[in-house]
Amino acid sequence: MLAEFDLIRRYLMPSPTRHAADGVALGSGDDAALLVPQAGHQLAVSVDTSVVDVHFPGDAPAFAVGHRALAVALSDLAAMGAKSRWCFMALTLDQRRFADDAATHAWMEGFGQGFHTLCQRHATTLAGGDVTSGALTVGVTVMGETPQGQALRRDGARPGDVIAVTGELGGGAGGLALWQRGERHLEHPLLQRYLLPEPRLAAGEALLGLASAAIDISDGLLADLGHVRHASSVGAVLDIEALPLAQGLEEALGGEAARQAALSGGDDYELLVTLAPEKVEEAQQRLSGFGLGLTVIGHCSETPGVQGIPSGGRAGWQHFNEGTP
Amino acid sequence: MLAEFDLIRRYLMPSPTRHAADGVALGSGDDAALLVPQAGHQLAVSVDTSVVDVHFPGDAPAFAVGHRALAVALSDLAAMGAKSRWCFMALTLDQRRFADDAATHAWMEGFGQGFHTLCQRHATTLAGGDVTSGALTVGVTVMGETPQGQALRRDGARPGDVIAVTGELGGGAGGLALWQRGERHLEHPLLQRYLLPEPRLAAGEALLGLASAAIDISDGLLADLGHVRHASSVGAVLDIEALPLAQGLEEALGGEAARQAALSGGDDYELLVTLAPEKVEEAQQRLSGFGLGLTVIGHCSETPGVQGIPSGGRAGWQHFNEGTP
Repeated sequence: MLAEFDLIRRYLMPSPTRHAADGVALGSGDDAALLVPQAGHQLAVSVDTSVVDVHFPGDAPAFAVGHRALAVALSDLAAMGAKSRWCFMALTLDQRRFADDAATHAWMEGFGQGFHTLCQRHATTLAGGDVTSGALTVGVTVMGETPQGQALRRDGARPGDVIAVTGELGGGAGGLALWQRGERHLEHPLLQRYLLPEPRLAAGEALLGLASAAIDISDGLLADLGHVRHASSVGAVLDIEALPLAQGLEEALGGEAARQAALSGGDDYELLVTLAPEKVEEAQQRLSGFGLGLTVIGHCSETPGVQGIPSGGRAGWQHFNEGTP
Repeated sequence: MLAEFDLIRRYLMPSPTRHAADGVALGSGDDAALLVPQAGHQLAVSVDTSVVDVHFPGDAPAFAVGHRALAVALSDLAAMGAKSRWCFMALTLDQRRFADDAATHAWMEGFGQGFHTLCQRHATTLAGGDVTSGALTVGVTVMGETPQGQALRRDGARPGDVIAVTGELGGGAGGLALWQRGERHLEHPLLQRYLLPEPRLAAGEALLGLASAAIDISDGLLADLGHVRHASSVGAVLDIEALPLAQGLEEALGGEAARQAALSGGDDYELLVTLAPEKVEEAQQRLSGFGLGLTVIGHCSETPGVQGIPSGGRAGWQHFNEGTP
């Protein structure tokens, strides 16, 4: 049984992204980390817990477990338009699942690489952590910054605003379906979408000042649109035909299931935003700068609820009706 | 099965300590919380995970589980001399352990009360949370503030500094021993110490500018003193007879076991500090202002290691020898 301290020191600390300007006055090794926030900014903070066999498969590659746990947390910062700065990890690890210490080391190395690689890509410093014993669970606290009063919230959508999504939809659910069928080629674009989602941090920041509301699509487009509708007191008219389906999704699931995956599958970690029609073009230009599409899929209305969902398919989505949050 | 959203809304949010000056620009209900840090301060951040049957007994009262999970996290802020401001909770809950929804509600109500009562006592706002399904685990992220550059660290102890502890020692281990023997009267002072520890936040703040180093005693006096010794490159000479034993500890465990509990038992959440001899009196005066003792138990030396531990009892503490952190 490896000591927790050893695991933290070898695989989780120090983050390779530590640098002079990372705003960490004191990193791990004391009772708390000391961070230096930027003047004139607000702190955006979110916590996300990923539990084995609930949020990711127990046999997922260690690299993907590390990547994914951080990605889903960072996705919340992206949805605020925040620049990610620091993260903290609470790892609960069941060492009995490993045959021996060498297997624990191998898993931790892959896990740490997945986590750190994504940290580095988004200039995020792992500033502290905690390893405990129990069922594999990765708790991640992410902290970012937004200029005072400019964060993208859920409650700013207005009737007449268009509804748009970044990237493609349905890939999370499609990838999970493939994984459950035994697909293990990680290069498959749908598995990539499910196991190695990319938080849209650059997109979120680029949409500051343009989007009237934003949310990340973690529960499914209809569910997350529901959160925006309720917070903003608007309705929505969707154009189902406009949904940008993930690459390979229709081939993998068939047309009807693909559309349902895009509407309610969840785990896509794209951004759903609302914005005034005259701002769409500039938003699309900004996002195309880093190769990301922004697709208009409908608009906000004064009539509560969602219009444009095919009536035949509606029953399948009844848990997204008005009554539930 | 109760919806996670409902549990969060009913029992965890909003924190009863929300007030205009709490520095929360946007609380729960969006993708991330937006916090407003104080200018000229550093952020002290720590995460702590409490796992059922590892960190607390599965049959502990819900109120104690909520209190304790937050208390151990706040104790890290106390050890930095930080003023606690915000916390975030990641609760993993196994609803199958409850007979029915009413039992879940009853447990959550007690848990929330334990957590919120301690929040309120320390002016800490619960600014966000996450509920997932799995073995009962409470992950807490705490965030506090210290004036720029003034935090109490582990690496500031100097030879000649005295070593002192707040309050009493051994109560955590003594309470655990009693609990394991079947004691269930929560008014018992040792059970109080084990299940409802009080983080020494006011003491930590009061020691800013006086203490040269500080740590909270979570792993046991010798282990945590070891962290300070290594970080500060000093040795220690202890006066075993001076250890302030928790009320009722000798009666409960006997003299020898009581002393061992005080030296290596852990879970006391008192502060261990070092300070120049001429500052002891002022430190004691400040702490006596809120009814807390500060007992000198030794001093720092240039000779590595710990002197003053009775040689006969040393073998029992060999895992705290020089080789281990």
